[in-house]
Amino acid sequence: MKELVLGGARSGKSQFAEDQARATGKQLIYIATGGAGDDEMAQRIALHQRSRGDQWTLIEEPVKLAEAISSVDCKDKAIVIDCLTLWLTNCLMQDVFEEEKNAFLEVLPTLNSDIFIVSNEVGSGIVPLGALSRQFVDQSGWLHQSLAKICDRVNLIVAGLPLNLKGA
Amino acid sequence: MKELVLGGARSGKSQFAEDQARATGKQLIYIATGGAGDDEMAQRIALHQRSRGDQWTLIEEPVKLAEAISSVDCKDKAIVIDCLTLWLTNCLMQDVFEEEKNAFLEVLPTLNSDIFIVSNEVGSGIVPLGALSRQFVDQSGWLHQSLAKICDRVNLIVAGLPLNLKGA
Amino acid sequence: MKELVLGGARSGKSQFAEDQARATGKQLIYIATGGAGDDEMAQRIALHQRSRGDQWTLIEEPVKLAEAISSVDCKDKAIVIDCLTLWLTNCLMQDVFEEEKNAFLEVLPTLNSDIFIVSNEVGSGIVPLGALSRQFVDQSGWLHQSLAKICDRVNLIVAGLPLNLKGA
Repeated sequence: MKELVLGGARSGKSQFAEDQARATGKQLIYIATGGAGDDEMAQRIALHQRSRGDQWTLIEEPVKLAEAISSVDCKDKAIVIDCLTLWLTNCLMQDVFEEEKNAFLEVLPTLNSDIFIVSNEVGSGIVPLGALSRQFVDQSGWLHQSLAKICDRVNLIVAGLPLNLKGA
Repeated sequence: MKELVLGGARSGKSQFAEDQARATGKQLIYIATGGAGDDEMAQRIALHQRSRGDQWTLIEEPVKLAEAISSVDCKDKAIVIDCLTLWLTNCLMQDVFEEEKNAFLEVLPTLNSDIFIVSNEVGSGIVPLGALSRQFVDQSGWLHQSLAKICDRVNLIVAGLPLNLKGA
Repeated sequence: MKELVLGGARSGKSQFAEDQARATGKQLIYIATGGAGDDEMAQRIALHQRSRGDQWTLIEEPVKLAEAISSVDCKDKAIVIDCLTLWLTNCLMQDVFEEEKNAFLEVLPTLNSDIFIVSNEVGSGIVPLGALSRQFVDQSGWLHQSLAKICDRVNLIVAGLPLNLKGA
């Protein structure tokens, strides 16, 4: 089972993904794509970790997502990837997005783990002015479309509650 | 009955909440949290008042929402709170959000009025750059999650039409 | 049949509208409201054209939408208007939005073509600071509400998938 969990900032999407991963009864893996770049970010990460509890194995991987997810440690587990948006940002900044995206989209359907992919829905505000922000919104939207085709289930989370888009 | 009515700017969320309040057949109370700080805002408020008609008792309360809603005037009525976003902004600016939020979340389930809480869905665009804006988006999202748990019904309004999230 | 197809940037809304237009079996018309103002925009337009294929008759009309859509060429066809957001921007910049909007809303219900109207959902992020951006968000939201009343069907597209708001 692969699921795409979309939602705005503080929509409860991570919590929703974690609850579903727990419900599988499988061993739990948490792939964090964000590094603690500054104090505010470090606080957010610590807050997330406290609310998750310690039944999770944490893997930190900002860029090589395809490699991480197809490693032997991730076989037949329940995996939360949190979040795709930071991974996209990291890949764009290191100019490796095309190859990393292709690798991820290629390996994803071949895996037998239950995978819950958390990502920010960023396209529903005013189109941002900078060319870089626009590129980010573009790549994010196209990536979500590609993943929605691959995934068995897609939910949009609003105020902690799911709007089902695919595979109820 | 408590309902959370979410929606973007000009999504028709206020109209939707007012229509539902009217349908209860109870006496109508309108709690406005926004003051007329400038000409543009004054125009928006006047426009809202004209479209509502005059069967409504207006209470203006920018900050002490828990106090207003639990007053004797609000007992057994149909109440629209419009909107939570301005109240959140006012509370953050006066540095009283924690206590006002806790008071509101505590008193809300104890009231026997039908309460329709209108709030902006602000988290679905690009994450804003300023720490203050991010704090606002965070608090707004967490507040919506807390309220969604308390409320019997939650709707997201898009183009004047509801997407039902809870309690159809 | 008239349908309003809303969605954020890169949500797959154009593709969704085109697929539905094709499914009618009628002759296909594509009304493009955006001009190639700069290189980035020209690239986007070229990309859209390639993905559409060449069964479409292209009409480019940045402002006079009511006139274009009620012309003899558009009679009893399947028409995609892509997108309303650029048309709104063009009309606001030329200060002709009130009359063009009224003309469009008046003529739309009288037409016998199947019309798929693509528009950006821009109101779900932080309220922008500039008065012009706010006016744009306001007009966009009110326009969507007016159109949603006229249209037989309304869908919000997220990650290429529809959330049905009206007329499933």
